[in-house]
Amino acid sequence: MSNKPTLHTSFSTALLHLYDVSNSIVVIIDVLRATSTIATALYNGAKCVIPVDSVSRCIELGKQIEGITAGERDGKIAEGLEHGNSPFEYPREFIEGKTLVLTTTNGTRLLHMALEKGAKEIITGSFPNLSAVCDHIIEMKQNVILGCAAWKDRVNMEDTLFAGAVISKIGEYFAINCDSSHMAATLYEKGRRDLFGFMKKNNASHYHRLMNFGLEKDIRYCFTADKANILPEYKEGKLVVK
Amino acid sequence: MSNKPTLHTSFSTALLHLYDVSNSIVVIIDVLRATSTIATALYNGAKCVIPVDSVSRCIELGKQIEGITAGERDGKIAEGLEHGNSPFEYPREFIEGKTLVLTTTNGTRLLHMALEKGAKEIITGSFPNLSAVCDHIIEMKQNVILGCAAWKDRVNMEDTLFAGAVISKIGEYFAINCDSSHMAATLYEKGRRDLFGFMKKNNASHYHRLMNFGLEKDIRYCFTADKANILPEYKEGKLVVK
Repeated sequence: MSNKPTLHTSFSTALLHLYDVSNSIVVIIDVLRATSTIATALYNGAKCVIPVDSVSRCIELGKQIEGITAGERDGKIAEGLEHGNSPFEYPREFIEGKTLVLTTTNGTRLLHMALEKGAKEIITGSFPNLSAVCDHIIEMKQNVILGCAAWKDRVNMEDTLFAGAVISKIGEYFAINCDSSHMAATLYEKGRRDLFGFMKKNNASHYHRLMNFGLEKDIRYCFTADKANILPEYKEGKLVVK
Repeated sequence: MSNKPTLHTSFSTALLHLYDVSNSIVVIIDVLRATSTIATALYNGAKCVIPVDSVSRCIELGKQIEGITAGERDGKIAEGLEHGNSPFEYPREFIEGKTLVLTTTNGTRLLHMALEKGAKEIITGSFPNLSAVCDHIIEMKQNVILGCAAWKDRVNMEDTLFAGAVISKIGEYFAINCDSSHMAATLYEKGRRDLFGFMKKNNASHYHRLMNFGLEKDIRYCFTADKANILPEYKEGKLVVK
């Protein structure tokens, strides 16, 4: 038997319950674009990011704590909110020292589920903070679950590719008896040289959705490693730099 | 807009509810080994195969209809049953004209779920009957869901590879807005030249489980296309050749 900690990949929020969450670090993955934007805002000096699951909760909390409210519906800033989901909306000169209240349905639901199931630690992962995630989970020597948020529970390509990137970099430090992880790593190896092109070639649903909104720049950024290389950790309702 | 019917892949029984089952043909996929054995028994002249979800139900029904009872637990014939899950146990000289009552937890649960959700038609798929499945769904011109049984709801490599094989052969006849389908097709394309080797290289969990039981021959057969090329359809509680 191996003494290495285990690593599993959950392809969807609807599958997280299958894994031993209470004994693991859970990495929340919502590549396009929630966790990429979270890493970017924190990297650029945001005090914290508070993820919420609805526009109304975002508006309410934004008033209560004088935070910046952000979220989109159908590619536009949601009514009543101030900003969108693009990482480019949060440069240092704007976000430094501020609190960002961000609505994100898929990622927030997964995060709350990990919390309810008693995860040892909850962090968020995206290509912009790939190395920070990898360095941390190697150092911790704990069991890890790579939790893909997916889209309304349907498995998506981009979250899978990020899980694959993590496994590709640090898989050797873990015992991986998990077909989803091997699938993710194989897909990443296949696409790693040009992830944007891989999304396009494979007709990934979010590639089309975001391209239709004119967001090619966002997609390209969200597939670029280590542009915002900090580690967001969820503590007492907030994501802060660990 | 495309006039083609849609095709989706559900990676796990736990994800089937996300898809429009009542408007679709559902292909039940449980490659190692339930649906491969079902195809083989029917190809070799079994009158029908009745899938049941427990050993006790298998024993009971076997007595009631004088059927051959089959099922395994931990790689051995389950107590009280007569035969195992290997396709090699069902040659023509043994199974012709007989009814096989087969316990299979993952595949049967998926099949019952598709039934409850009102699938238009339920068929079973495996490499031994790959072409029969493909020919049929092209001909039907209906929406299709490739339903991977998975293993206790965890996504597995072999069912995904079969979904990918179907998409690789007949994807052009369908509108596919489904990342799972594209992931499956990409994995299949990567592994198609040597699926057995691909399972081994990727440390697929069922590869190890069955190899440990000395069942390499079963795995190799279950990844060979068109050795039992009939189409099992679920009608009135039984799988029969369509």
